[in-house]
Amino acid sequence: MSNDKTAITPTRAQDFPEWYQQVVKAADLAENSETRGCMVIKPWGYGIWELIQQQLDRMFKATGHQNAYFPLLIPISYLEKEAEHAEGFATECAVVTHHRLEPQKDPVTGKTKMIPTGELAEPYIIRPTSETIIGAAFSRWVQSYRDLPLLINQWANVMRWEMRPRLFLRTAEFLWQEGHTAHETKEEAIDETRQMHRVYETFLRDHLAIPVIPGEKTENERFPGADMTLTVEAMVQDRKAIQAGTSHYLGQNFSKAQDISFTGRDGTVQHVHTTSWGVSTRMIGTLIMAHSDDDGLVLPPRVATQQIVIIPVTPKEDTKQGVLDACKALAETLRLEKRFHGDPLRVHVDTRDIQGGVKKWEWVKKGVPIRIEIGPRDIETRKVCVQRRDQASNEKEFVDKEDFIRNATDILQEIHNSLLQRATAFRDSNIVPCESIDTFHAHWGQDNPGWLITPWAGTPEEEDELSKKHKITIRCLPLDKQDEPEAKCILTGKPTKSRAVWGRSY
Amino acid sequence: MSNDKTAITPTRAQDFPEWYQQVVKAADLAENSETRGCMVIKPWGYGIWELIQQQLDRMFKATGHQNAYFPLLIPISYLEKEAEHAEGFATECAVVTHHRLEPQKDPVTGKTKMIPTGELAEPYIIRPTSETIIGAAFSRWVQSYRDLPLLINQWANVMRWEMRPRLFLRTAEFLWQEGHTAHETKEEAIDETRQMHRVYETFLRDHLAIPVIPGEKTENERFPGADMTLTVEAMVQDRKAIQAGTSHYLGQNFSKAQDISFTGRDGTVQHVHTTSWGVSTRMIGTLIMAHSDDDGLVLPPRVATQQIVIIPVTPKEDTKQGVLDACKALAETLRLEKRFHGDPLRVHVDTRDIQGGVKKWEWVKKGVPIRIEIGPRDIETRKVCVQRRDQASNEKEFVDKEDFIRNATDILQEIHNSLLQRATAFRDSNIVPCESIDTFHAHWGQDNPGWLITPWAGTPEEEDELSKKHKITIRCLPLDKQDEPEAKCILTGKPTKSRAVWGRSY
Repeated sequence: MSNDKTAITPTRAQDFPEWYQQVVKAADLAENSETRGCMVIKPWGYGIWELIQQQLDRMFKATGHQNAYFPLLIPISYLEKEAEHAEGFATECAVVTHHRLEPQKDPVTGKTKMIPTGELAEPYIIRPTSETIIGAAFSRWVQSYRDLPLLINQWANVMRWEMRPRLFLRTAEFLWQEGHTAHETKEEAIDETRQMHRVYETFLRDHLAIPVIPGEKTENERFPGADMTLTVEAMVQDRKAIQAGTSHYLGQNFSKAQDISFTGRDGTVQHVHTTSWGVSTRMIGTLIMAHSDDDGLVLPPRVATQQIVIIPVTPKEDTKQGVLDACKALAETLRLEKRFHGDPLRVHVDTRDIQGGVKKWEWVKKGVPIRIEIGPRDIETRKVCVQRRDQASNEKEFVDKEDFIRNATDILQEIHNSLLQRATAFRDSNIVPCESIDTFHAHWGQDNPGWLITPWAGTPEEEDELSKKHKITIRCLPLDKQDEPEAKCILTGKPTKSRAVWGRSY
Repeated sequence: MSNDKTAITPTRAQDFPEWYQQVVKAADLAENSETRGCMVIKPWGYGIWELIQQQLDRMFKATGHQNAYFPLLIPISYLEKEAEHAEGFATECAVVTHHRLEPQKDPVTGKTKMIPTGELAEPYIIRPTSETIIGAAFSRWVQSYRDLPLLINQWANVMRWEMRPRLFLRTAEFLWQEGHTAHETKEEAIDETRQMHRVYETFLRDHLAIPVIPGEKTENERFPGADMTLTVEAMVQDRKAIQAGTSHYLGQNFSKAQDISFTGRDGTVQHVHTTSWGVSTRMIGTLIMAHSDDDGLVLPPRVATQQIVIIPVTPKEDTKQGVLDACKALAETLRLEKRFHGDPLRVHVDTRDIQGGVKKWEWVKKGVPIRIEIGPRDIETRKVCVQRRDQASNEKEFVDKEDFIRNATDILQEIHNSLLQRATAFRDSNIVPCESIDTFHAHWGQDNPGWLITPWAGTPEEEDELSKKHKITIRCLPLDKQDEPEAKCILTGKPTKSRAVWGRSY
């Protein structure tokens, strides 16, 4: 690939949405299936999800949560209990109405077709989220304050009938985790909601190298049935926002609808306060859009399916075995002796019998943080050729093998830091304070506009009107910007200490 | 609990099926839900599944497999392609026919009900198994012999509309893994089928302490669409068989139906040979029935959610803190310094403010391999009181704390060995060779009959007749018993070197 050519066509600047599709394809992460809106997550993409799962799961367990598993199918009568929640989800869900297929011969074509039979007395929906079915279990499990808090998490697939699916970002079926907790008091439940919000912020920053804006959703943007929704908002390279994770305080809305009650310390019967919080395979879409470049995927090292790929350079048959042995020995040393944030290094040796340049570009497009080449000369000089995915594709450095082994985890951390720094600088230069409604209106006429942060004290209706006008939303009320110097609301002129962040989003 | 009373009522001898339900309940493993045939897997039960997953996953990766994820919903047209497969699964599946719910007021009650709308042009079924949808992906992925072998595994939920569900053993929805591989040649595919069969045998023996009979299924008992089905058959304490895992050689049946073809080394277009293999949450039911006793669950140490539970004995307020500190310190030492088969020990300190006897029995019923008690006197003498779940509940031993720390993993291994030994002795004394058809007929009239191993050369029809007559099946043709001295088939009298194992099963 020469310097003026990129591995991905089109580039980000030419057509961002199409660039995204091409990166997913070039990195072999996922593909569409014949099931409407559902994707196949291929091994390289699923590897990222496995790492996200493992690392988040440790954080959940460290904060006292336990995993459990609840039914995929929800009786539709459950949805009739919490009205707002039902309205929010029932318009887009998969409904199971029959439990049998029978073969039937088509009189015209003569072919056998399968026909649904065995109609169910009560249909089920495939869970779009599990508040109702987990709530039903909680109402069985909680009797006394001694049974609280209940701190449960579920790793599962869920389904929402999306009209305009997009790989990872919006798919009918997706994988996620959903935490569900029940508490004695409002304070405790809110503490939990905030704690898990912080877990997501930390995870995105320290594992995915994505700097988010943590904040609260306005009433308009809340989870259906929640009293408070906290969100972590990521900015990706076309300056759109992606809601990367949410944590909800559900008050007593679900516990009253489903009778999750307990005998309190004072002997009275009370309803629990519940929370729920989740992140999904959408995070993979977020990290692709946040970090990747015109040569393909760029993976943050902690969630890289492979962190180091070693490519043997074997021009001649007589030195080939020696080079292969050296590559495998280096991989083994790195795997056994080095740990990055507690986990053994993930190192792959690409021994395929194909051209070296083809190999190199495949791993560039797949986003591997460090590529190593070893040839016959390097064995004599005890050096390895190191290339970093966060640097230009033609940059390389020959370093002593022993130095590389010693520094491998530091280099991975440097790559993480450089991705985080780059994303933070990009985000910060694209969130602009705005106190004039004229500037505000004009802003959204630009191509790929950044976010605006404004004083805001409007009503939900006023927010809705502004949002629709410009196809934007209040992404959040940033947690650290709710006690600012008093200023005039950008629309109503009412004095306010609160600030809102506005932007376009996926 | 006095010696003549058991923690579980009824006992195994009194009513084995009901005893099983009560063990599941007493150990807090799972419960029924309001979704027909679907269970809630509670944290203690899900913890076992997480450990099964982790440990099997390592074995799959060590044999070159990668994880991926495929859609939950299968277009019903896919089922029309492989006739035998469709017939085997379509009679019991959840069918999705609509993609929306709309609220409708009931004119009689005035209540709002949710009504399915948005009928789909082509319905979907929830995967009962994924051969067809994974085959569709394979047909896109495979072009040349260079793309082979494809070695894929999926961890997923699947659904089969079971008429008589039973927690873990037979549920409408269950969790499992399904391996799917595609190969250039028949030999390679059969090697893979046998390899994964051995992985299951090893896993059951070394991780679950269950000695299985590995063998091949007869044609009657094969997976729908398979050319060969290998099985691992476990005997549980009522002498019934449980098929604990299967590995199928699918020949070219699916690859021809779905056109998974490639250009071979000789330039001709050929169909791949595929395999599939799976184990499920059914394994948890198997291990409960294999090892548990009249005091509740007995967990094999490698899959014990907690391996060691430490119970502080705190009779007096002034020594309480010292005891708690000693318990926590011991737990921390064990967690940080000891590894059992490579994994850190799982140690829990039960600090709840409830009576010691209640605590003890809770952990007995939950099957924790080692219980430790520490009281104020033990701190002075530097001893701990050790109780093992594989020994009588009133047996205890006071040992030096340092000795216990040193020997903890050895004790866990001893417990594993004793469970395996006990189960092996039980199995071996309950598989009886039988060469007379009269003895054969008489055998099945007993209560809880063991298995019979007989010379067999009958037809599928003859096998079916015998099976129906006694409500038995040929569990397998044991791999190591297919080249025995020639003997007369128990039914037909034809000479045969093959032996078949017959039994009742779950």
